[in-house]
Amino acid sequence: MNILIVHAHPEPRSLNGALKDLAVRHLTAQGHQVQISDLYAMGWKAVADGGDFPRHDSRERLSYVHASKVAFASDTQLPDIAAEQRKLLWAQAVIFQFPLWWFSMPAILKGWVDRVFAYGFAYGVGTHEGERWGDRYGEGTLAGRRAMLSVTIGGREPHYSDRGVNGALDDILFPIHHGVLFYPGMEVLPPFALFHSDRLHAEQWPSIAESFTARLDGLFTDAPIPFRRQNGGHYDTRQVLKPGLGQGTAGTRLHLLQPGEPEQQLLEVAGPRLKSA
Amino acid sequence: MNILIVHAHPEPRSLNGALKDLAVRHLTAQGHQVQISDLYAMGWKAVADGGDFPRHDSRERLSYVHASKVAFASDTQLPDIAAEQRKLLWAQAVIFQFPLWWFSMPAILKGWVDRVFAYGFAYGVGTHEGERWGDRYGEGTLAGRRAMLSVTIGGREPHYSDRGVNGALDDILFPIHHGVLFYPGMEVLPPFALFHSDRLHAEQWPSIAESFTARLDGLFTDAPIPFRRQNGGHYDTRQVLKPGLGQGTAGTRLHLLQPGEPEQQLLEVAGPRLKSA
Repeated sequence: MNILIVHAHPEPRSLNGALKDLAVRHLTAQGHQVQISDLYAMGWKAVADGGDFPRHDSRERLSYVHASKVAFASDTQLPDIAAEQRKLLWAQAVIFQFPLWWFSMPAILKGWVDRVFAYGFAYGVGTHEGERWGDRYGEGTLAGRRAMLSVTIGGREPHYSDRGVNGALDDILFPIHHGVLFYPGMEVLPPFALFHSDRLHAEQWPSIAESFTARLDGLFTDAPIPFRRQNGGHYDTRQVLKPGLGQGTAGTRLHLLQPGEPEQQLLEVAGPRLKSA
Repeated sequence: MNILIVHAHPEPRSLNGALKDLAVRHLTAQGHQVQISDLYAMGWKAVADGGDFPRHDSRERLSYVHASKVAFASDTQLPDIAAEQRKLLWAQAVIFQFPLWWFSMPAILKGWVDRVFAYGFAYGVGTHEGERWGDRYGEGTLAGRRAMLSVTIGGREPHYSDRGVNGALDDILFPIHHGVLFYPGMEVLPPFALFHSDRLHAEQWPSIAESFTARLDGLFTDAPIPFRRQNGGHYDTRQVLKPGLGQGTAGTRLHLLQPGEPEQQLLEVAGPRLKSA
């Protein structure tokens, strides 16, 4: 299978670097094809700005969304953006390797999302009619692909437990899992998380490596997070979860399928649908 | 009062630019002192890397956390980082003006957090003993200051409602509100959010401006989000919320004080406490 690793750490000799290297070695040995986007090594441009649209007249007001739409549709995106999109289309699974900084991605990785997830590619995809609100949350350009975060976390595990002071890890990662990855269609696996990462010792590495390779081995078989598909009949025309669904849950967990709930079937559209990929 | 506006939008003629300009005009007219960190205009370095630590030997493995600690403690931080910290210490309130991109901050603003919120300044502050876990979540260097996000959002408001498909806005912003702002001690006001922002028309501006100035007028008087203080006796030594608290809630809302719960009193420490500010 084809696997893309998006890696965001400034130090190759870090734990993140070791996990990335291990993933490459292990997946390659298993017969997979692997590409790496090592954002620091690439000198990735993190800041989304007018420089992303050389054809945009700088005297005109810049709408990044509109300029992104025009550039994607007219095939005039910057080469670095288009190259990352090609890697995503090539991949059947994407692993994101990064340290959790301030409860989110390092800026360089956020800038990868901001710039690569263009209008027409990762959002603004599909048609709107009735209960359908475009192709997103389970549908879209990246449908059929899997994604997994592999994160190192400085804090201790209980701080990220359901009642932990930092908030539950699932809640903290919801904007990424649901909003960045599931949105353009990817199936999202539970994260591989290493806590208290600044205090790990060398003798812990074998067991870490064993846990991580087990997760790599399950990349195409482990059950993804059961997010509700937007167009599966569970959300109304205002895109609000219908009454009776999600009973006994609240917050981000409302958007997980609950046992005993009706299965989701994707609504068909009568008209032609934009195919972006 | 002293107010810092951290602004992150690439186009001065944008809605975000207009809100920032309005804030400067209105707050100044009310007699406040205002400083602006216009990150795009400043060409803010978004990427946290070894370049932030010129004294770090590049042949040595870089731990960003450790290098940040050393640079802060030895007063050898880069001038751009130290300047932003001084603005934060000067400010009695901080307004963050930005578009919500992929359910979080633009990368340039995340990079401001990653770099400015140094070890010893925004984390790694205070002593640990018993139930106290340093000075964070309501205590810390930025205690006594207020913070408010002013965000433009492309999607429609129902999509961000409690049962909306994107997740509730409070859940989406929790990593920023709680994890970035409350963590180093700031009191966080409810956000000022403009939905469906790409479709707003000029004739809506007067009512938008009126709503926004009302929020600016309440910057020092509106009730903040009632996050629990970490060292207020509600979390145990593992930093897990004690049994019986947060009943009837779940997810991120566990960390909000509920009506009828015991008041929080900050635990005192016997030993000397690090004062960073």
